[in-house]
Order: sequence, then C-alpha cells, then structure tokens
Amino acid sequence: MTSAPLGIAVVGTGKMGADHVRRLTTVIGGARVAAVADVDAERAKAVAGPIDGCTAHTDPAAAMAAPGVDAVLIAASGPAHEPALLEAFRRGLPVLCEKPLTPDPGGALRVLEAETRLGRRLVQVGFMRRYDAEYVRLKALLDEGGLGRPLFLHCRHRNASSPSFFTTEMLIRDSVVHEVDAARWLLGQELTAVQVLRPRPSSYAPEGLGDPQLVLFETAGGAVVDVEIFVNCGFGYEVRCEAVCERGTASTGAGTGPVVRSGGRWGGEVPQDFTVRFADAYDREVQAWVDATRQGRVEGPSTWDGYMAAVVCEAGVRAQRSGERVAVEAAVGRPGLYG
Amino acid sequence: MTSAPLGIAVVGTGKMGADHVRRLTTVIGGARVAAVADVDAERAKAVAGPIDGCTAHTDPAAAMAAPGVDAVLIAASGPAHEPALLEAFRRGLPVLCEKPLTPDPGGALRVLEAETRLGRRLVQVGFMRRYDAEYVRLKALLDEGGLGRPLFLHCRHRNASSPSFFTTEMLIRDSVVHEVDAARWLLGQELTAVQVLRPRPSSYAPEGLGDPQLVLFETAGGAVVDVEIFVNCGFGYEVRCEAVCERGTASTGAGTGPVVRSGGRWGGEVPQDFTVRFADAYDREVQAWVDATRQGRVEGPSTWDGYMAAVVCEAGVRAQRSGERVAVEAAVGRPGLYG
Amino acid sequence: MTSAPLGIAVVGTGKMGADHVRRLTTVIGGARVAAVADVDAERAKAVAGPIDGCTAHTDPAAAMAAPGVDAVLIAASGPAHEPALLEAFRRGLPVLCEKPLTPDPGGALRVLEAETRLGRRLVQVGFMRRYDAEYVRLKALLDEGGLGRPLFLHCRHRNASSPSFFTTEMLIRDSVVHEVDAARWLLGQELTAVQVLRPRPSSYAPEGLGDPQLVLFETAGGAVVDVEIFVNCGFGYEVRCEAVCERGTASTGAGTGPVVRSGGRWGGEVPQDFTVRFADAYDREVQAWVDATRQGRVEGPSTWDGYMAAVVCEAGVRAQRSGERVAVEAAVGRPGLYG
Amino acid sequence: MTSAPLGIAVVGTGKMGADHVRRLTTVIGGARVAAVADVDAERAKAVAGPIDGCTAHTDPAAAMAAPGVDAVLIAASGPAHEPALLEAFRRGLPVLCEKPLTPDPGGALRVLEAETRLGRRLVQVGFMRRYDAEYVRLKALLDEGGLGRPLFLHCRHRNASSPSFFTTEMLIRDSVVHEVDAARWLLGQELTAVQVLRPRPSSYAPEGLGDPQLVLFETAGGAVVDVEIFVNCGFGYEVRCEAVCERGTASTGAGTGPVVRSGGRWGGEVPQDFTVRFADAYDREVQAWVDATRQGRVEGPSTWDGYMAAVVCEAGVRAQRSGERVAVEAAVGRPGLYG
Repeated sequence: MTSAPLGIAVVGTGKMGADHVRRLTTVIGGARVAAVADVDAERAKAVAGPIDGCTAHTDPAAAMAAPGVDAVLIAASGPAHEPALLEAFRRGLPVLCEKPLTPDPGGALRVLEAETRLGRRLVQVGFMRRYDAEYVRLKALLDEGGLGRPLFLHCRHRNASSPSFFTTEMLIRDSVVHEVDAARWLLGQELTAVQVLRPRPSSYAPEGLGDPQLVLFETAGGAVVDVEIFVNCGFGYEVRCEAVCERGTASTGAGTGPVVRSGGRWGGEVPQDFTVRFADAYDREVQAWVDATRQGRVEGPSTWDGYMAAVVCEAGVRAQRSGERVAVEAAVGRPGLYG
Repeated sequence: MTSAPLGIAVVGTGKMGADHVRRLTTVIGGARVAAVADVDAERAKAVAGPIDGCTAHTDPAAAMAAPGVDAVLIAASGPAHEPALLEAFRRGLPVLCEKPLTPDPGGALRVLEAETRLGRRLVQVGFMRRYDAEYVRLKALLDEGGLGRPLFLHCRHRNASSPSFFTTEMLIRDSVVHEVDAARWLLGQELTAVQVLRPRPSSYAPEGLGDPQLVLFETAGGAVVDVEIFVNCGFGYEVRCEAVCERGTASTGAGTGPVVRSGGRWGGEVPQDFTVRFADAYDREVQAWVDATRQGRVEGPSTWDGYMAAVVCEAGVRAQRSGERVAVEAAVGRPGLYG
Repeated sequence: MTSAPLGIAVVGTGKMGADHVRRLTTVIGGARVAAVADVDAERAKAVAGPIDGCTAHTDPAAAMAAPGVDAVLIAASGPAHEPALLEAFRRGLPVLCEKPLTPDPGGALRVLEAETRLGRRLVQVGFMRRYDAEYVRLKALLDEGGLGRPLFLHCRHRNASSPSFFTTEMLIRDSVVHEVDAARWLLGQELTAVQVLRPRPSSYAPEGLGDPQLVLFETAGGAVVDVEIFVNCGFGYEVRCEAVCERGTASTGAGTGPVVRSGGRWGGEVPQDFTVRFADAYDREVQAWVDATRQGRVEGPSTWDGYMAAVVCEAGVRAQRSGERVAVEAAVGRPGLYG
Repeated sequence: MTSAPLGIAVVGTGKMGADHVRRLTTVIGGARVAAVADVDAERAKAVAGPIDGCTAHTDPAAAMAAPGVDAVLIAASGPAHEPALLEAFRRGLPVLCEKPLTPDPGGALRVLEAETRLGRRLVQVGFMRRYDAEYVRLKALLDEGGLGRPLFLHCRHRNASSPSFFTTEMLIRDSVVHEVDAARWLLGQELTAVQVLRPRPSSYAPEGLGDPQLVLFETAGGAVVDVEIFVNCGFGYEVRCEAVCERGTASTGAGTGPVVRSGGRWGGEVPQDFTVRFADAYDREVQAWVDATRQGRVEGPSTWDGYMAAVVCEAGVRAQRSGERVAVEAAVGRPGLYG
C-alpha cells in the first residue's frame, strides 16, 4: 500500500502555505515536508524549524532542488505561480497549485502550452470544492442521470465580511471563480457567456464595493447558472448550490450541526468562514493529491481547468463593468492532453 | 361581532367559481351564496340548486341584482372581468375579483379609471399569496427591519406539469404574475425592468413550450428579483422565496408534513398542486374579504395592484420574445385612492 | 350541498367557549350560534349580544331548548360536562364536548352507559389532534402499511410555561391526555400499562411541580409509547411524534415558517402556544362536526375514546405517585355501539 | 511541531485492525505502522508486507518489542485486550484500545487496578463518538451552560440489519455501550440505574432476537436517558441524540448531504452503516491519539470510562433479562488518577 512518504517542497509560507505545512505534517498520511521557500527568509525558517529534515529557502527553485523533494505545493501569491510552475515542469515534479493557476488568462495560457509541450500532466489546481463531500455527492447524482439533463444551477456564495483590500473585481476573480470551476465540473460543460446584475450595494459594504451582485452564465449545453455573490452578508459563510434538472432538483448547503430550540427559536449555527465549512475538503484535496502522486498519477482539476477559469473570470469582469452580456472566448481549444 | 351573513353573487361557476361556492357555503363563516351567474345556464343551475335561496342566472348583472346580494365574487374567464367589474361599480357592490384583474393592461387601466372616478375602493384582487401564512410572516420579517434593506428575492415557481393549452406567454401571464404581485407587496416597490433568460427547454416540456425560464426584475429601490419558472418540473408543485437583505436572509417553502425514513432515504412528500399548497391561503383570502366587507372596509390587493401586474407581465412577455431588457412603463401614476 | 345553517347552543362562555363562539360565527361555514349558556349571566349576555337571534341563558337546559337549536357544543368546566351531556341525550341533540369528557372515569362511564342505552352515537369528544394536518397524514402513513407494524411512538409535549394553578397530576390529566388519545387513535390499540420516570425537576418549574416527566405506555399490540411532558421548557410550545415501525419511521413536528439566517445562526420561530400551533386543527375539528351533523352523521372521537382517556389518565396518576408500573383496567369492554 | 513519526504496533489485523493500519498509513499524519501482530500469521504478513520497515508477528508482546515501536493500537478480539494492555503497561507504552476495554467488568477492573498501580494513564479507549463533530458541538453547548441543567437525553441508535451472530445481550454490550459512554461524557455524570422495555420484536428481526428495545437510565444528577436500540430498522444507520435542558434543547443527527426533490418527494439519503456516518470521527480519534502521544500526553476516554461502561452494560443485561430496574454498582470508586 505504501513505501516512503512523499517529500514535498512548499512554495510560499504565508497564511495559506503555513496551513498546508501544518496539514501535510499533522493531518495527511504518507507525506513529509522536505523543503519550504518564501521571499521572507525568516518566515521560511520559522516554518521549517520544527520539522525533521526540512530545509528553508528564499528561492523556489532551490527548495525544489533540495534533497528528498518528490513534489511541489505552490501556495505563494498569484504572480509567483507561473515561474514556479515552469520550474517544476523543468524538473518533472508533480505540482499542487493553489487557485488561481495564474492571475490572468495570458499567464495561464503559457503554463497550458508548456505542460502540453511536456506531453504529460503534472498539475492539479487547488479547486477544493471538488473534494467537498456534498459536492461529490451532487456530482454523482447528476452523473447518474436519474434527474435528467441539468437546466439551472442556482448558486449562493456569501461571506460574513470582506477584507479591506477587497475590490469589486475580486468578487469575480477571487470568489465567483469557485462557482466557475464547480459549474464546469458539475455540468461537464464550458461556460459560454456571462452577464452581471448589480443591485444597489448593501449599506454595510465598504464604500465603493459593488456588493452584492448576481452573475449569470450560459453554458455550451444550454443551461443557465446564476450566482449570488455577497461578501458582506453579515451572518456568516454560506455556500449553496441547487441543480435543477428535467426530472428533479438536488441542493447542497443545508445547515448541519446540532439543532437548538431555545428562546422562542429553533435552528443552528452558521459557520463563520471557509476554513470551517471546507476544512474537510482541503484535507481530502491534499490527501488525494499525495495518494495519487505516490502512485504516479495526476488527477483532479487540470491546467485546462485553471486556464478556463481565468478566461471566464476575465469575461466576467468585463461584464461587470459594462452591464452587458459578454461572450466567453478561449484563445485555444482544449488540448488532447486534457481529454 | 356579526349580524346577518353576507349575501354574495358568484359570477362564473366553472372550476374556480364552483370551488369558491363550495368554500363560501361550507368553509367560510358569515357568508352565503345568494346568486350565481354562468354563461352555461345548466351549470349555474346545478351549482345553485342545493343552496337555500340561491338563484341561478346567465347574466352577471341579473345575479348582482338578485335579492339579498351584498357583494360580488368574480371567477369567470379573464375577458368577462371588465364588464362584470364595471357593473359592480354601477351598483356600488364590493368585489373579490380573481386574478388577473383583466387579461391586458388596457382593460385594467379602464377599470382603474372607473374606480378612481367612483372615488372609493370596491375591489380586492385575488392574489392569494398575500394570505399564505409563510408569506405573511416573511412580509412581517421584512417590515420589522431587523434584516435591513432587501437586496434580492430569489423565487422558484414549479409545477409538476402544464396543461395542454399552456403557452410560453402564459409562463409570465399565468404563473410569474404571482411573483410579480408578491415581489411588489413584499418589497413595497414597483418593478422597473425585466429580462428573461431561456435555457434549452426540458425534453419533458411539450413541443414548442419554452420551459423553464429565468425571469429577472429590477425594482425602483435597487433590488433584483429572479424567478425560476418551470411548469413541467415533474416532481410536484413548489413555490419558494428567499429574501436576501443587508443583515440576513429569510426563506419560505421548506418541506412540511411528516418526515419519513424508509428504504435508505429520509424526507417527505411534495404537494402535487397549488390547491393543496395554498388551500389555507384561499380560505383565508375569502374569509378576510367577507370579514372586511361586512365591516364596510375594502382591503388587500387593489385595482392598482391588478393594473401594475398586467403592465409588468406585458413587459415580461416582450422581454421573453426579444431576449432584451425591457423597461416597465405604466400609462398613469398611482392614483391617490390607492395610497 | 347545504340547506339552513346548523343552530348551535354553546354551553360555557369562558375563554374556550367564547373562542368557539367566535369560530362558529366568523370562521366556520354552515353554522350559527342560536343560544349560549353560562353560570355567569353577564358573560353569557355579552357573548350573545352581537349575534343575530342568539339568546343568553344561565341554565344549559334552557339554552338547549331555545328556538333553532339543532346541536350543542359543551365548553363549560369539566364537572359541568356530565349533566350537560345527559341533558343533550334527553333531547337527542348531537354534541361536540370539549375534552375531558368528564374529569374522572366514573362520570365518563355513566355517560358511556347512557349513550349506549340510547343506542346511537351523539357525542364527538374534542380531541383536536386528530384534525391536525400532520397527524392526519401520519395516521394515513401508518394505515397504508408500507412502514410495517408500529413498534414505538416517541412523543414530546412541551409548553413554554405552566399556569399558576397547574399541578403534577395535571401533567397527566390535562397534557398527556392528548398523547393518550393520539396514541390510541394512531395505533388503533388500547394502552394497557403505564409507568412514569421523574427526573429531578427543572429549577424553572414552580415549587412542588414535578416537571418534566417521562411517561411510558405499553399497548395491547406490543408497542411502547414514551411521552416527554415538560410544561416549563421555556422556549415555546412544541408537540412532536415519531412513529418507529418495522420498515421505517415517520415524524411530525419539524419546524415550519420562514427560515432566517442572521447573526451567525439559521433557523425559525417556535410557536408560543397551542392556539397558534393547532389553530387550524380547531377550525377543522369544528367544521368537520358541523358538516357531519348537518348530514345526520356522528364521527370523530367517541364517548368510548373519552372514557378510555379518563381510565388511562387515572392509571397514569397512580403510576406517577407510586413510581411503579400500573396496569390500565377499564370497568367495561368496548360496547358494540363504538365499533 | 513535529519530529519523527510515531511508530505504532497494531495488535489484531482483522477487519477493524486492518482498517486502522490503512488509516495510520494513508490518512493520519505523523504516524507509521512499525509492527503488526495477529494470531493468523499469514494475515499479519499480508498486512505488514506493503509497509516499509513493518514487521509481522503472532505474539503481541513481540510486536510491541519490535524496533521503532513507540505506542500500541489494540484492535484484537475482546478477550485478547486484557493481556495486551497489561503487556503494554509493562513496557510503559501508550495504548489506543478499541472498545470494549474488556468484555466484562472483572477484566476491566484488573486493568484499572494495574494502571492505577502504575500511577499514570497510558490508555485511551476507542469510544469514537467523542470525536464526532456533532457530538463535540453538543458537548460544548451543554458545557457552556446557556441551556441550563440537562434533564433528558433522548437517544436513537438504529442499524439497517444485524449480523447473524448478533444476540439480544449484544444490543446492550455492543450497541448501547456507545450511548452509555456518550451519556456519561455529555452529562459528566455516572449512570446509576437501568431498566429495559421490550416491545414485541419486529417481524424482520432474526428469530429469537429481542429487537428493538427501549433502555432507560437514571443518572447521579437526576437526569433520565432513554435509548431506542433497533438493529434491524431496515432503512439505514441512524444515530441521534436530543438533549433536553432547563432552558432549551439541542439535537444531533439531522440528515445531511444533498436534498433531492424528485418523483413527488423531497429528502436525502440515509447512510447505510457506521463506517460512513462516523468515518471522520474515527480519523479524528486516531489523529488526536497520535498527536497527544507524540507530545507525551494521554487524553480522551480513560480506563475508568472503559470500566464504567462495562459495569453499566452488565447491569443493563440483567435489566434486560428481568424486566426490572437494576441499580448500577461499581466495585470501586473512581481512582484519583482519573480526576
């Protein structure tokens, strides 16, 4: 079932990277962190210090070249993804790359072309929704076919509040990007056009932030996907999806946890952020990557998925600005490598 | 609290009218059916026969003139509404008029002008959603203000299957018209524009019927209302509404009735049509009308509400055909009579 | 479908009686209050005053003898039930008698024997749970047989708080009596033994009140019924029932009404008392009695049901005091009159 | 945060043991299986084979003595627990021992005394409910105190069907034992008496099996715990717990996963066995043990908890046979070692 644990170089040891180091060290079976890299040398050392045989670097390439490195996990900031991915390609190392693959379609296209030239997949993109138990079951329900062809996906994506640096564009690029990937995956169809409706912003949204919005996608198979994105909803973190098919509907996102009756009310708690709601999904995502990599396989969301997410989000931002319907246009067709 | 029961002339004794006669006779307190009218004399007689002192007519005006008539309930087909309403106005009789007020904005405008000239309200329009316990509570929640300003209404309106005569236009005029009134009432705002997205029709929809659709409304207060209308969903009758406000959300339409665990599944039954789901709403609507009328008051959805519903649906049908955003434009402003 | 409305004499115009007068006058179709009786003459007059042709009396017999009286509704205090019932029997008038039939098994037995001698049913006892939509559906589910033979009924009966005069005995006689009738009806079986477990009382229960308790019944068919009775639960009124059968379970009492997400929580309101939770059941109960009576039929919970409820509660109170299992023993077998 | 992974000797490589080996190897971070022991030498070898540096043994003591062993996981059959525990004590090795600690109170007492003599805790007993997210949250809710003192725990424990070797006693010893531990842990109170009600068995239960039953516990703090145990319920695996407190209730076990509307019904799937329902709890239990052990701590359910579970179950089996209330009597008081 197993031989030696997978030695991993973690690129980027900020909040997300440090959390992945913790996960790889204390939650995930069959893995060890062999090296870390961060532009901040002290931060890298602080993370590497307590881990047996883990070296600290400022150069991602040096971390990938460290002894015992079998694979790479990229959790650095978006602009650092492209060079780190290309370096991993040069070394033939499998990569788990946090989303977004790159911040823009141009970079994603270069990565796509590089991997295509390589002739084999090395990249799993970090769209963790695909590893959430409810989404997995929803995907299975749609694929089983008993509900018929999907007609709508009604999606809700709500955060209690947005960080100070959040911009209107980030509603699409940082938040709706999850629904973009989830919709493509659930439906097995590309998104072909996008339009954005903008209600008068909530008075609780920061000045200048166009929050909330309703983002409407059309798909190649004639379905419609609507996403309510609301990053200052106040009450917690909530992600729901209702698939409406020809013979029935299936919904995720019902409340869980204990139901309390007290003070004239019944109900339960809303989780306050994605680290609670999707904690298991992150664990499963990384465990699945470690397991597949140890067996020489590359699975999960591909570079093509990362590229198309960037293309759709680019169109989404233009739709957001113009108020018009914008067609989604990829610069290349899907390479054969991505089935 | 009470004196003699209210004597009612029921105009139209088809399916809907006969059901109202049953309701007035065996469910509603303080009312009696004094006369009925139907173009089909035999049908009118059959309905009137078993009821003490109830006379049968083919002319609505004759029914309204019958002894003991204090008020009128109009349940005839749409084109018959306008003359019946004007006749009731001539006689100063309070009216409960089934929706639609009239089939088109022109007729509704004439009724509006006639009642405005009269200088007092006589009409309650039969939008029964306003009498459903869940909608009443939702309206109260929004009015209490604790949830903040409404930003979205996400509405679902699904029927198991559509009758053979159902047309694509009727998705708007017959079905979405309920959400048009409910949204105006819940938000206390006019709808100002409409757009329709049309996924590829379900293969279970009759040939030529564009089912389902997503109808998107903008409101005067900057909210967005999206309505999924799906009249061949296969599994039953389902009406849901989620109000998304600045400080929280409120949803109606969760399943009720016994929850069964059996055969590997948990869950309950979906009601099969509106007569089950809204049975209590119809009873409350008619009882409220009888009670108010006996006390000399006219309440509930007004002629203005009936007129605006017709105007919005007219714009909706144009949006449906064009695929474009269509502005909602009323021919007149809201008369002072309607507050 | 109908002739003249049913003329009713209402005996007892306290809180419950006055509410029934309101119901008969403004909610129920096909009925009119023809006479009322109350030991308090002023109260009777105040209730009768606004009703056309309704006379006020202090003597129940006089009210029953008033012109236009076709049937009797008894809502007086418990000890007044027996003489009023016997008077109605003498006059051959159909009766809707609020629960309990009589306060003790002895009185109930005398009523049972009097009705049996009469040779026809005149009494419907006011166990309104049988008219609640959820209970009706649960009964149908059990009768359909798909879930197999019932093995357990797990019942919860909770009140926000108890009135000052409430005694430990009343937990059985006033509250659990509803589950006694519901269990007998749902299962179609007599209850054969009872035992009571008494946790340390809630510190919010009034001094001396043994609240809450767990009441355990055995049935003639080998099922077990457990009832949590808790009349100072603090948070509202809650009645639930889970039937556990050989092939599945069915539960009533899930929360209804709008689901709100706000302030870190999701959920809804708990109704505060039975007048809210069972409002529709009371309306349906009285309407069903009026409808049946007008057609010359007597249906619903019978005098036998009222007698058995008294017998079971008597055993329950003895079990409560002794802490032991007490067998339920009726003085007579079920007369043929009660099928 | 970490140095070398914890080397574990797994005693017993049957179904449960093999699953723990899989978990330790591919799911749990910071652990490695260093040795395995099984009475069946071939089975031990088959499990050890694919694991780097893992040795196979027939003697548990030899496995514990193998190089690199830091801790022991006991998953052998019940009677093998006591000698394996005592051997681990001799070697001073921390132990995760699957439930039951021992099959009977006598053996558990000897283990308790041995650990007490040792003067420090080495044992964590495998009551995995304490690691289930819902139970953890329920425990926190009760401890926070906002709901007041607990008065009842209403527990449901249902299996789709029982294996052929299952006996009536095992309803208590194998199934209800989980509620025994959960109740002691949730309430922080010992169970002091037990009584069993036995409805007529389900016709789907194997001949001779008294299934289902209602097991009633009294606690030292005056609460009452009722457990419906039903191991042939047919529809799936279901574990629920409702805590009724002075100021409110809290319930676990609501259905999760996608909600489907189709074919006239709404609802979701019931998991079919505990490996699905409690998969995460097992993972968290073992991860928590590995983490604590690596930090030199012993936490979780103790030998005292294992002993008391055995004592309560012994009383439960006597109550089951006699139909009488049986007091729970431990042979010793809680040693100071167990706080």
